[in-house]
Amino acid sequence: MFKILPCRKFLGSKEVYEKAKIILISFPLDHTVTFRSGTRFAPSAIRDASYSLEEYSFLTERNILDIPFYDWGELELPLGDLSTSLKLIEDVSETIIGDSKFPAIIGGEHLITYPVIKALKKKYDNLVVFDLDAHFDLRNSYYGIKYSHATVMRRVAEVIGVENLFQFGIRSGTKEEKDFSAGSNLHTLSSKSFEEALLKSCGRPIYLTVDIDVLDPAFAPGVGTPEPGGPSSREILDALSFLQNGNIIGFDLVEVCPPYDPSTTTSILGAKLIIEILFLMDKKP
Amino acid sequence: MFKILPCRKFLGSKEVYEKAKIILISFPLDHTVTFRSGTRFAPSAIRDASYSLEEYSFLTERNILDIPFYDWGELELPLGDLSTSLKLIEDVSETIIGDSKFPAIIGGEHLITYPVIKALKKKYDNLVVFDLDAHFDLRNSYYGIKYSHATVMRRVAEVIGVENLFQFGIRSGTKEEKDFSAGSNLHTLSSKSFEEALLKSCGRPIYLTVDIDVLDPAFAPGVGTPEPGGPSSREILDALSFLQNGNIIGFDLVEVCPPYDPSTTTSILGAKLIIEILFLMDKKP
Amino acid sequence: MFKILPCRKFLGSKEVYEKAKIILISFPLDHTVTFRSGTRFAPSAIRDASYSLEEYSFLTERNILDIPFYDWGELELPLGDLSTSLKLIEDVSETIIGDSKFPAIIGGEHLITYPVIKALKKKYDNLVVFDLDAHFDLRNSYYGIKYSHATVMRRVAEVIGVENLFQFGIRSGTKEEKDFSAGSNLHTLSSKSFEEALLKSCGRPIYLTVDIDVLDPAFAPGVGTPEPGGPSSREILDALSFLQNGNIIGFDLVEVCPPYDPSTTTSILGAKLIIEILFLMDKKP
Amino acid sequence: MFKILPCRKFLGSKEVYEKAKIILISFPLDHTVTFRSGTRFAPSAIRDASYSLEEYSFLTERNILDIPFYDWGELELPLGDLSTSLKLIEDVSETIIGDSKFPAIIGGEHLITYPVIKALKKKYDNLVVFDLDAHFDLRNSYYGIKYSHATVMRRVAEVIGVENLFQFGIRSGTKEEKDFSAGSNLHTLSSKSFEEALLKSCGRPIYLTVDIDVLDPAFAPGVGTPEPGGPSSREILDALSFLQNGNIIGFDLVEVCPPYDPSTTTSILGAKLIIEILFLMDKKP
Amino acid sequence: MFKILPCRKFLGSKEVYEKAKIILISFPLDHTVTFRSGTRFAPSAIRDASYSLEEYSFLTERNILDIPFYDWGELELPLGDLSTSLKLIEDVSETIIGDSKFPAIIGGEHLITYPVIKALKKKYDNLVVFDLDAHFDLRNSYYGIKYSHATVMRRVAEVIGVENLFQFGIRSGTKEEKDFSAGSNLHTLSSKSFEEALLKSCGRPIYLTVDIDVLDPAFAPGVGTPEPGGPSSREILDALSFLQNGNIIGFDLVEVCPPYDPSTTTSILGAKLIIEILFLMDKKP
Amino acid sequence: MFKILPCRKFLGSKEVYEKAKIILISFPLDHTVTFRSGTRFAPSAIRDASYSLEEYSFLTERNILDIPFYDWGELELPLGDLSTSLKLIEDVSETIIGDSKFPAIIGGEHLITYPVIKALKKKYDNLVVFDLDAHFDLRNSYYGIKYSHATVMRRVAEVIGVENLFQFGIRSGTKEEKDFSAGSNLHTLSSKSFEEALLKSCGRPIYLTVDIDVLDPAFAPGVGTPEPGGPSSREILDALSFLQNGNIIGFDLVEVCPPYDPSTTTSILGAKLIIEILFLMDKKP
Repeated sequence: MFKILPCRKFLGSKEVYEKAKIILISFPLDHTVTFRSGTRFAPSAIRDASYSLEEYSFLTERNILDIPFYDWGELELPLGDLSTSLKLIEDVSETIIGDSKFPAIIGGEHLITYPVIKALKKKYDNLVVFDLDAHFDLRNSYYGIKYSHATVMRRVAEVIGVENLFQFGIRSGTKEEKDFSAGSNLHTLSSKSFEEALLKSCGRPIYLTVDIDVLDPAFAPGVGTPEPGGPSSREILDALSFLQNGNIIGFDLVEVCPPYDPSTTTSILGAKLIIEILFLMDKKP
Repeated sequence: MFKILPCRKFLGSKEVYEKAKIILISFPLDHTVTFRSGTRFAPSAIRDASYSLEEYSFLTERNILDIPFYDWGELELPLGDLSTSLKLIEDVSETIIGDSKFPAIIGGEHLITYPVIKALKKKYDNLVVFDLDAHFDLRNSYYGIKYSHATVMRRVAEVIGVENLFQFGIRSGTKEEKDFSAGSNLHTLSSKSFEEALLKSCGRPIYLTVDIDVLDPAFAPGVGTPEPGGPSSREILDALSFLQNGNIIGFDLVEVCPPYDPSTTTSILGAKLIIEILFLMDKKP
Repeated sequence: MFKILPCRKFLGSKEVYEKAKIILISFPLDHTVTFRSGTRFAPSAIRDASYSLEEYSFLTERNILDIPFYDWGELELPLGDLSTSLKLIEDVSETIIGDSKFPAIIGGEHLITYPVIKALKKKYDNLVVFDLDAHFDLRNSYYGIKYSHATVMRRVAEVIGVENLFQFGIRSGTKEEKDFSAGSNLHTLSSKSFEEALLKSCGRPIYLTVDIDVLDPAFAPGVGTPEPGGPSSREILDALSFLQNGNIIGFDLVEVCPPYDPSTTTSILGAKLIIEILFLMDKKP
Repeated sequence: MFKILPCRKFLGSKEVYEKAKIILISFPLDHTVTFRSGTRFAPSAIRDASYSLEEYSFLTERNILDIPFYDWGELELPLGDLSTSLKLIEDVSETIIGDSKFPAIIGGEHLITYPVIKALKKKYDNLVVFDLDAHFDLRNSYYGIKYSHATVMRRVAEVIGVENLFQFGIRSGTKEEKDFSAGSNLHTLSSKSFEEALLKSCGRPIYLTVDIDVLDPAFAPGVGTPEPGGPSSREILDALSFLQNGNIIGFDLVEVCPPYDPSTTTSILGAKLIIEILFLMDKKP
Repeated sequence: MFKILPCRKFLGSKEVYEKAKIILISFPLDHTVTFRSGTRFAPSAIRDASYSLEEYSFLTERNILDIPFYDWGELELPLGDLSTSLKLIEDVSETIIGDSKFPAIIGGEHLITYPVIKALKKKYDNLVVFDLDAHFDLRNSYYGIKYSHATVMRRVAEVIGVENLFQFGIRSGTKEEKDFSAGSNLHTLSSKSFEEALLKSCGRPIYLTVDIDVLDPAFAPGVGTPEPGGPSSREILDALSFLQNGNIIGFDLVEVCPPYDPSTTTSILGAKLIIEILFLMDKKP
Repeated sequence: MFKILPCRKFLGSKEVYEKAKIILISFPLDHTVTFRSGTRFAPSAIRDASYSLEEYSFLTERNILDIPFYDWGELELPLGDLSTSLKLIEDVSETIIGDSKFPAIIGGEHLITYPVIKALKKKYDNLVVFDLDAHFDLRNSYYGIKYSHATVMRRVAEVIGVENLFQFGIRSGTKEEKDFSAGSNLHTLSSKSFEEALLKSCGRPIYLTVDIDVLDPAFAPGVGTPEPGGPSSREILDALSFLQNGNIIGFDLVEVCPPYDPSTTTSILGAKLIIEILFLMDKKP
């Protein structure tokens, strides 16, 4: 069984699990490193950063205190044991889903999306995934490794079907990945592309995974593999607001890397995105 | 009486007070901290940074040496004594104004704007304030505190009338603040909105207060409360040039926070904005 | 004679000099410092950073492994002896050119462009230079010094003729420099201006020199003299792709300054630009 | 009434308050800043850092899991309201003491010691205080302010009597402070001086307050007012072990300042000292 | 077969493999992370840092140019594939040993010592290992993992016999580790203990492994798991000189972690230790 | 003629030049770089840091306000023109000496000592120099350059005679330098060696030059060429106090390098050393 470690609560968290529709939890997996690591420190940094932001959202004219979410804490992961870690993430996700709640996840590295999707797929058979990322993460394997932050979306595609994977903002990958994604749902990151994707997925449940490196490194310097040429914070915030008509039933925000974030602007942006996505998940009356 | 401490002179300062029309001075108030502090170190960092810039302005085709400004130095403030500090700031501002000169101020935190406005209001009865900021700063009180960087524009509004406060670039606040500002002069930060505001204020004296966090944290990471989603340096520089027809009789640049500015780009941007605003204040012949 | 020190090879380098059409080499000159220095550490940082990027280019749909370039290493420079350093840079450039290869250079400070141009001019009589920079670098002398990063483009103009110098993105300089460049080829940095410049230079050989400070400091904080108000990474990457019809016979990327680049995003951007320019230099079949 | 915010638990914390003899709690007061601030971020940094250390103590041959302590979390403090903050700290301290438990406190700034001592004095009439610090903190007032990190030990002396204050490692102060402390218990920081002080205080209850700046800045760079010339980590660890025969009934560790601690070595040292002092408080059977 | 990537040569390297008695090589393994990672970047940082030091050693009155060592470069390791990585390290070590040369290794994490010892043991049956470290690294397994930086010395002990392992400077570990090492060769780090160990090992071949975290974090802040309370640089340099009578046939320097080394002092110290150990390995005529 | 730029005054400076016996001034020369540069930023950082220290000295029981020194400001130096810079430094030094005052200098790089000594020698024919440094700086030339931070003490020795140069703390150099200094006054840095040197120099006027890198990099990380193995802050402070019987008629503190000093501990130590040396220069009544 899993163990949830107590943490500083994210800004605006309810006091108890039972009263919440959305469960925030962190999975500090930081294992399948390629260039540089440190995402294990992201949950602590993002929770601290949330207190630099207002409870009231200027964009949506709503207050985070009105959102029924509970910050459960951090899943304890066995150091260096990847398969058990993935299993635990799947288990805790199933528990949240089984309680008829929505998972809202702070990573950790991108690989955590895979076990969450496995858990969600059991409940939501027609699940679609919206992936905001600079990189495809569609390799079949990486240096012989099947489960890695570089292969995670390939694994996700195997679970939900590649046609149900919508990728936004991708600007780096291999030819193999580009070919694999061909004909599928590759988009730039914009309001327009979100609208198109919503239309295509017509009301089906959406899981949103946000790799913070989808932003240009100017806006998110503290990431494992910065990829120049991405959108700005304003562009992503503006685009996200178009998802308010989507049926988002879970999300994760991954790959914030505090050791490379000396001004903590990446953690603050991560916290900001989490708040805005929480508003997206809770429909206005 | 106040005491002005000598400092390294800002790039292009005249040698004596008497010959200058504009008096640059720093108020290192850093007292009403919320998230993180350090603005007391801004004046020193910004003056040093000014020497990384050219004396000639490409935008305005003018030379800073042609601007009649004098860098007076730094006001000595009694540590931890807020009310005396505010009084001293008001006194020195009155002195400058009484000498028929324009104050040009380097903060310190945003609260310094309040005593400056009190001093200016005595001379300029029809004063309007242009406030560039990510945050309203319109709370009536903050944790029971009446004078704080989170309430400063409310206090300013009480002095000049809320209808004479023009805010630009605001993207964060509480519902109370948004309601308070309703019907008043809230703008995005753009050339167009500057033009409209100039039209509305038709020739009246303008005090310009620039909270550096109005910029996106990518462009100004070294601030106390970074708020993602703001404009770029180019956008603000372009917009500012539209103020050349305004009757600017004073300004401040506040909230640069050097401990969070490892590449010193925020201090350099602060110095750049000061230079461009100095050009705005001194009309071409 | 010069000595080339072995280095970690840039991503995708061929194994031998002989098989390559393009020779990558670093000149760690860091001598004529004005505001702050450290460009001597750029080659090592940029080579390391190259491994954070994919071998496959998403923009051009090509693989860096298909580009016939060889990373020769770093030229050893005699510390503090500027004239010998410039001579050695010219010598090694001549060697590369004499072997019918194209030089691809990692700086070091901007002054290195001058001896490279001297070497190229001997072979390419109708050479034009495309200079991407925030600063003119067109002073005739700087504090009495004739060879400096602040005068380098003046020296280059003397070699190739000022009419053959095309400058893009300049936003800082003196009146003297602006006057000197009057009537010549000053452009904003955009696809359109690249197209115009290509048209004007109609097929003549182009040397491309990229001072990384042409970008806004948000995108390139790790530079010697950050100048706010520049383009974004995306803007420069988009614009560069318009040069694919140009006849680029050499380039340098200069002024990356690792001591002011705590998240290494400037080095990564430098590596990215080098890769994209390598693609520009090697025409598709 | 006070509110305790949940936090990540310090390494080895018991699961419930009731079973613990020692209650760890953080008071993030960061208000009476002089040179530079940021101690509000210390509790989060120190708790994170505790996980870099072993549960087993090499020095004492004991395991932190055997110590009956519970990490209660962080006291919520009203921003900017110093007197209420001090009252809340006193209240929560009284609660802990009233439950027959020992307070173990993570600061925050040094001023927090004062309300804790006030609470302790009610129970322990013959209380002595051992103060490890680089600075006297014995000013009567500081810029007219009576309650400040620069006056805290003067206030403490007023509560317990100056003869019951033992100071160790002091190397900075004013003449006024030195005179005030004359004839009292001023010591260098060493095993010998701890032995002497223990002898003098012969079995009376001891409160230990450790200002991390007692160490040389080489060992604790992340502090508000670094004072060169202090002892090393090894010296302080060695000396502390001589306190094992003392009757320690509470302690605090204050003034860790994460914004100036880029390698987190100060936070790690803070966590290490807390662990070793916890061992001191719990006698071996 | 393995592949050696070219690198910037360490200060004073000979030009060819064949002429050298000692082969310097880097193994950038950074896989079995516990607290924080980044040792993969150590070889590049240490090689760069070596150029900040003099070629002449003040202590030994010798010149590094007189030492017959060759910097071969960096072993290419398959990302994420630990067992192949360990095999490759063993293979390349065997090659060096097979050529009758001494391996001199820059890590990477401490686990690299294990395959090197396996290779050495085949040639030197009576091998002893001198281990300078803050941590035992004697766990039998770590979170179920058998090969890790936390178990490496246990694995080494299995190869050479625990009685042939001499540990110096250990100040952190578990009870299990302390028990395992009981009765064996545990020493403080001092000249005296080196002398004793040399006496005990009477002329047998010695492999020296230096985990840089043996130093106090003040002297080596850039490490994965800083452990306060260690010796100073001067203490370790003084002690090392007592090994000049030892028969050192190989060494490694591991666990430098550049992301946490903002002043690069840890890399410089690493380079310094490598130079001094190279002098130890090459006897004076 | 020279120009002195106004600066923030060092802690405790008198208000006017005329009333002071000691003149503090900064020479921001940062030209003859070898490993890394940035000493030009030292004067500003050290002056700012002085305000973190007490006016009262615990060691000497005196107050800095009682020392008759005046902080004149910063000498303007022509960028890139070394010979003129050295001439200006000599000129301003002569002016101070000619006014029967003692120069107290903040560098800048170590080369500034040479022109100061030239100026002093004209007045003090029997001058001796006490040099605290990690490096000899006794090369005859460095890469063909005669005036450099690596040759400065050779130049000084030529002015005063090598027998009048006392060096303390040297631990790095070339064989050539060691030979040159043979038989002369090389000392470890200790109270004892200061006593011996005072005895030898029996009352003659002493100029003290302190290269901050004489300290171990743990205590002074922010320097150009850190050399591991040096003394601690406490050791140097203790030793310095033995100079109180010396006849110090001037001093400099050089080579603080703020870009590599993220916690500003090096600047603070620099300010501390300046204060303590000012006390040494002003004899108690």
